Amino acid sequence: MRHQPVPEDNFSFGLWTVGWQGRDPFGDATRGALDPVEAVHRLAELGAYGVTFHDDDLIPHGSDGRERAAAVRRFTTALDATGMAVPMVTTNLFTHPVFKDGAFTANDRDIRRYALRKTLRTLDLAAELGARTYVAWGGREGAESGAAKDVRVALDRLKEAFDLLGQYVVEQGYDLRFAIEPKPNEPRGDLLLPTVGHALAFIERLERPGLYGVNPEVGHEQMAGLNVAHGVAQALWSGKLFHIDLNGQSGIKYDQDLRFGAGDLRAAFWLVDLLESAGYDGPRHFDFKPPRTENGDGVWASAAGCMRNYLILKERAAAFRADPAVQAALGAARLDRLARPTAEDGLAGLLADRTAFETFDAEAAAARGMAFEHLDQLALDHLLGAA
Amino acid sequence: MRHQPVPEDNFSFGLWTVGWQGRDPFGDATRGALDPVEAVHRLAELGAYGVTFHDDDLIPHGSDGRERAAAVRRFTTALDATGMAVPMVTTNLFTHPVFKDGAFTANDRDIRRYALRKTLRTLDLAAELGARTYVAWGGREGAESGAAKDVRVALDRLKEAFDLLGQYVVEQGYDLRFAIEPKPNEPRGDLLLPTVGHALAFIERLERPGLYGVNPEVGHEQMAGLNVAHGVAQALWSGKLFHIDLNGQSGIKYDQDLRFGAGDLRAAFWLVDLLESAGYDGPRHFDFKPPRTENGDGVWASAAGCMRNYLILKERAAAFRADPAVQAALGAARLDRLARPTAEDGLAGLLADRTAFETFDAEAAAARGMAFEHLDQLALDHLLGAA
Amino acid sequence: MRHQPVPEDNFSFGLWTVGWQGRDPFGDATRGALDPVEAVHRLAELGAYGVTFHDDDLIPHGSDGRERAAAVRRFTTALDATGMAVPMVTTNLFTHPVFKDGAFTANDRDIRRYALRKTLRTLDLAAELGARTYVAWGGREGAESGAAKDVRVALDRLKEAFDLLGQYVVEQGYDLRFAIEPKPNEPRGDLLLPTVGHALAFIERLERPGLYGVNPEVGHEQMAGLNVAHGVAQALWSGKLFHIDLNGQSGIKYDQDLRFGAGDLRAAFWLVDLLESAGYDGPRHFDFKPPRTENGDGVWASAAGCMRNYLILKERAAAFRADPAVQAALGAARLDRLARPTAEDGLAGLLADRTAFETFDAEAAAARGMAFEHLDQLALDHLLGAA
Amino acid sequence: MRHQPVPEDNFSFGLWTVGWQGRDPFGDATRGALDPVEAVHRLAELGAYGVTFHDDDLIPHGSDGRERAAAVRRFTTALDATGMAVPMVTTNLFTHPVFKDGAFTANDRDIRRYALRKTLRTLDLAAELGARTYVAWGGREGAESGAAKDVRVALDRLKEAFDLLGQYVVEQGYDLRFAIEPKPNEPRGDLLLPTVGHALAFIERLERPGLYGVNPEVGHEQMAGLNVAHGVAQALWSGKLFHIDLNGQSGIKYDQDLRFGAGDLRAAFWLVDLLESAGYDGPRHFDFKPPRTENGDGVWASAAGCMRNYLILKERAAAFRADPAVQAALGAARLDRLARPTAEDGLAGLLADRTAFETFDAEAAAARGMAFEHLDQLALDHLLGAA
Repeated sequence: MRHQPVPEDNFSFGLWTVGWQGRDPFGDATRGALDPVEAVHRLAELGAYGVTFHDDDLIPHGSDGRERAAAVRRFTTALDATGMAVPMVTTNLFTHPVFKDGAFTANDRDIRRYALRKTLRTLDLAAELGARTYVAWGGREGAESGAAKDVRVALDRLKEAFDLLGQYVVEQGYDLRFAIEPKPNEPRGDLLLPTVGHALAFIERLERPGLYGVNPEVGHEQMAGLNVAHGVAQALWSGKLFHIDLNGQSGIKYDQDLRFGAGDLRAAFWLVDLLESAGYDGPRHFDFKPPRTENGDGVWASAAGCMRNYLILKERAAAFRADPAVQAALGAARLDRLARPTAEDGLAGLLADRTAFETFDAEAAAARGMAFEHLDQLALDHLLGAA
Repeated sequence: MRHQPVPEDNFSFGLWTVGWQGRDPFGDATRGALDPVEAVHRLAELGAYGVTFHDDDLIPHGSDGRERAAAVRRFTTALDATGMAVPMVTTNLFTHPVFKDGAFTANDRDIRRYALRKTLRTLDLAAELGARTYVAWGGREGAESGAAKDVRVALDRLKEAFDLLGQYVVEQGYDLRFAIEPKPNEPRGDLLLPTVGHALAFIERLERPGLYGVNPEVGHEQMAGLNVAHGVAQALWSGKLFHIDLNGQSGIKYDQDLRFGAGDLRAAFWLVDLLESAGYDGPRHFDFKPPRTENGDGVWASAAGCMRNYLILKERAAAFRADPAVQAALGAARLDRLARPTAEDGLAGLLADRTAFETFDAEAAAARGMAFEHLDQLALDHLLGAA
Repeated sequence: MRHQPVPEDNFSFGLWTVGWQGRDPFGDATRGALDPVEAVHRLAELGAYGVTFHDDDLIPHGSDGRERAAAVRRFTTALDATGMAVPMVTTNLFTHPVFKDGAFTANDRDIRRYALRKTLRTLDLAAELGARTYVAWGGREGAESGAAKDVRVALDRLKEAFDLLGQYVVEQGYDLRFAIEPKPNEPRGDLLLPTVGHALAFIERLERPGLYGVNPEVGHEQMAGLNVAHGVAQALWSGKLFHIDLNGQSGIKYDQDLRFGAGDLRAAFWLVDLLESAGYDGPRHFDFKPPRTENGDGVWASAAGCMRNYLILKERAAAFRADPAVQAALGAARLDRLARPTAEDGLAGLLADRTAFETFDAEAAAARGMAFEHLDQLALDHLLGAA
Repeated sequence: MRHQPVPEDNFSFGLWTVGWQGRDPFGDATRGALDPVEAVHRLAELGAYGVTFHDDDLIPHGSDGRERAAAVRRFTTALDATGMAVPMVTTNLFTHPVFKDGAFTANDRDIRRYALRKTLRTLDLAAELGARTYVAWGGREGAESGAAKDVRVALDRLKEAFDLLGQYVVEQGYDLRFAIEPKPNEPRGDLLLPTVGHALAFIERLERPGLYGVNPEVGHEQMAGLNVAHGVAQALWSGKLFHIDLNGQSGIKYDQDLRFGAGDLRAAFWLVDLLESAGYDGPRHFDFKPPRTENGDGVWASAAGCMRNYLILKERAAAFRADPAVQAALGAARLDRLARPTAEDGLAGLLADRTAFETFDAEAAAARGMAFEHLDQLALDHLLGAA
């Protein structure tokens, strides 16, 4: 099977990923700046179909109108030349020191207003470039200490901000949806909306819940020790998987942003299996950081690896699902019975059914093995290409 | 100030807490069984107002009707004698091996039906004893391996179960609400509804969302490295804090169920500060396990410690909030400005406001210090009684 | 390549692994007891070469001399019939409630003396059965609270215990070495000697350091978020890898004891690569727990999976090391230069070398890419059988 | 009791702590550079006795000899004016991109040689300024992927480097000892010598082990979920606590470097209790980062808080140890018996003692409660000033 990406695979990359210069909390940049135009061309050559960005990735902070227009023009020229799409756009609300206490939930009102205006401007740009998704990561919405942020009040402000942004998109007639990206911590001690669950719950309190979904990031869920495929499954179940950030993470520690496939490989396999079997048709977006040990060659090797690994895992997941031995094992593990309603006879039927309780033989039921280990070994065999 | 609990403090304990015999994954019981009647009397003497239980804590699994009635009668006699309430009841859907693959989401349909019937029966008992809250902890709803559980289908079954239980409560006219208790893992590798956020989101997909809220447990949120006060704040903000389980946990590891105040003391302080300032008026329920090193004396010392620590923290939080120096520090940290809407002038006003973007001086705004360290030191001083 | 184990693969299993009945902190046993004789026969049929045990696994606690002898006789008969070896023996110092505060470091002196005597007796049995390694896991040596254990004094007692055991082995002329097994926590809040590092350091303070090494367990190191291959490498570097416990763990949480290959697959790959390339010739010992969802069939499927996965990973690691493309990539990543001494010219030479500092071009050196991403992708390709 | 620091309290700070400008992985600096001379004066005014630095903190990278001398002269003038000491010096081997793959264990030999020369130069400066401790943190000694670093070979290089540095110090007659600082990860995916234990073990393989000890950092141990007081106790027990870095951390996540007392307060209490009761007489060195939300005032408030919190905790620990109720509780918990040897009668005596095994009543011994909960509540009461 082919492991070489093509545009139909829907792979996209952020400008900030291949363009990351390697500045970390303990070290200076190890790579020079990457021209967005070069990024577009290189990603297109590698087989990606789309490129995404924060406003400041494309248009340096502080550019005037003319510089802004010029930057956009150069970029769209590259898009036209390569056929690359811009499926998603987002706003940088975390790098500039003005956002040190947050953006939509900064204690200072003028900063909140500035953050909203910066975002509204990015929405215009997103619409202009044909993006269908706007990702919102509240990189600095949080706190390091207990009294510094009244969380209930901050959630009021967060709701106010998202309601306003939704109003704007509707009024402008933009064909854009919002995908909220959760993260438990870093760069703040604790972030608001720390997991997929918290973001899904928050959305239900907005004025136009239908406009908002989530953008889970593999490593962010894993930083809370959570099973990323489970969280994505709940997002899908809720009709809210609007976008996804694929990368790698080696357990609970700082945000590593490894290339997809590095880190927890089995979690990556189950995630791809889920996305493919659930019919998710949005971008497979890579939000990773080529390690700062790498020079340019390493950056592109790392980017290529993200896509290659997705394709290998997709191939393995498909083979797993198609294998008659697996289908038998799924039957032995009674997955088909989970798919059947528990009480299609309704509450009354259930209450009247003596076999459900009075004559139920719990010991006999308990004695049945679930056959999960056999099933999981088959999955591992397929993942390893050893089936 | 008094640190001696009285019933008005609303402290409650599960029978399974003081009654825990100390069986753990690597060791046998270190304490004998505790008679529920003795538990009621001892807890009343210590100053608690309520006692809670799983069905099987009160009525041993396999009891016949007569034994069940006798057990309930002995228990209610003790309640009457002591004035103790039963604010909450729950069902044990995890100890018996029949639940090894879950209860409402077990792959086997007959086990799901049995779990529902066992729960319906407990709802009757809860109503009979005047409980207002039914806690649902899905102790075994989860998996250790990726193919063993189709999470989206399992959520269908979980929704089906909760909808049925809600229907029953409504049809029976019971004055009962459900509080779903999240937990990230243990005893399963990954549990469904792993955090407060996931449970809040799930509730919105039920037929009668108003009937359901959450029962956050301090240690469960901390097992995912989350800030428990933040999660509880989002539950309060969502109108969904129906109950709470207080205990202690020392970071991300196995479920420790330490007495309240042990583990992360500062997190406990901020949680009490939140509950008291938010006007939460439900039970302060302790779900802890006296370490298995302890004999009976240690069990009661541990239970007493839970309440004592809550009262000390309540006293310290009140002093913190009342201190003029703290109020000044909150002002310096601009918490009052967070409470003000960001755009009461509406979207149009915001867009028209040139000071919000065009003339906004981001550098000047960035230069303002947030004064959070001073504020947090005042909080620590109050916690330590050194203010 | 063959993935079917044979005795020459040196695979061994603890009686307590396949014999685990599935009792966990929240649930009762889901499987019946397994006769050690049956375990020996089944493991031999599956291809293992050895079986290990805690004293109480073979001889139920409280057996008299005659019962003890009978149990040993039945067991050795099974060993003779199957050709199975007993490479390692250990003592259960954690299940009985008497050890609730530890064994060699229990605060109570009589319990410490009892623990020593129980261990000395097990050393006799180990020698009798030809075991060459005695594993010491201090399952209860630890504490949940700060004043309960004076760690420095406890380390004195731990040293005293190991020195006595060493003296006994020497005086008896037993051909036995000790392998200390670290674990960070569970069942105690914090355990002494929490990691491979702490155990290695402790050994250096014993009277006969040469008698003692470590028995790292994959999951135990991962419960502290550590890279298990790194810890094992330091043990090998120190000449102290006397034994190893292979299993799986999904990150920082309760002790999962998954089958080897489950959990962090890439960590398992690098560990096998290390063991095989370092020439480790001791047992590949599986210390896992077949999930309690499984019946007998699942238990044996799980045990077989441990060995199969080791063999697949061994095959992949060998192919990785043999691949010319990998050798080129290792060269590009300058692993050969790491193997060269930094200053074979000695301190004086280094100080005299102006190119080492005065004329060193740090910017030019910094500009070299390390080519690690390409190398790591090759490793992943080999692991996945996609090279 | 006084909570105002004086020089006799032995508090020291790194120039890089109060001088941290707030650059983090997602954001630019929020504070300007701090002149080392101002830092010395401010810290002296606050009550510190010493200041420490990395070479590059004092002398900007790339300074020539004259600039270097001038920087040192300005600094020593400030030291003289204030009476501040320089108890410790260290080398920055992580900020410059040349160290992106490590310093003493970089794959490139010329980089290793440069790192050694940079360090030797700092040793000269340390000796010149009268420092008695040289701290070595291997900030980049590690890897993100499995094949990128052969750990056993890297440990050879690390040993070579430390042996060379030791040789230099001895040959020069410097009165300097080395304190190795462990850290589990960040900025590399996994670091060599990840915990106190690994560093202690490594030291035993050096040519002059007596020259080397450890510099545990509170947050670093906690990033691995370890009990910091336990690790420090093992270092003390090994005679190897040469220096200590005090700060705060909220569990397993990115390196937070909160002020001492923030984060896990109970862990801080037990650590202070240990340092004070063990007679540790070295510097109480704060290695923290004032959050980037703070301006200059916040920086100094944060620094003052570190010292204040240490003094409060010291007061509380002293009161705890002096309290007769605590002494009774320690007796009830049998800490005195832990201090007694287990077998002062020797191996023969132990084997001959039938009460130690043959007639030992394990059930009776198991029935004794350890009374730890009462003891721990007393500790909490003292910590909270509520005893």
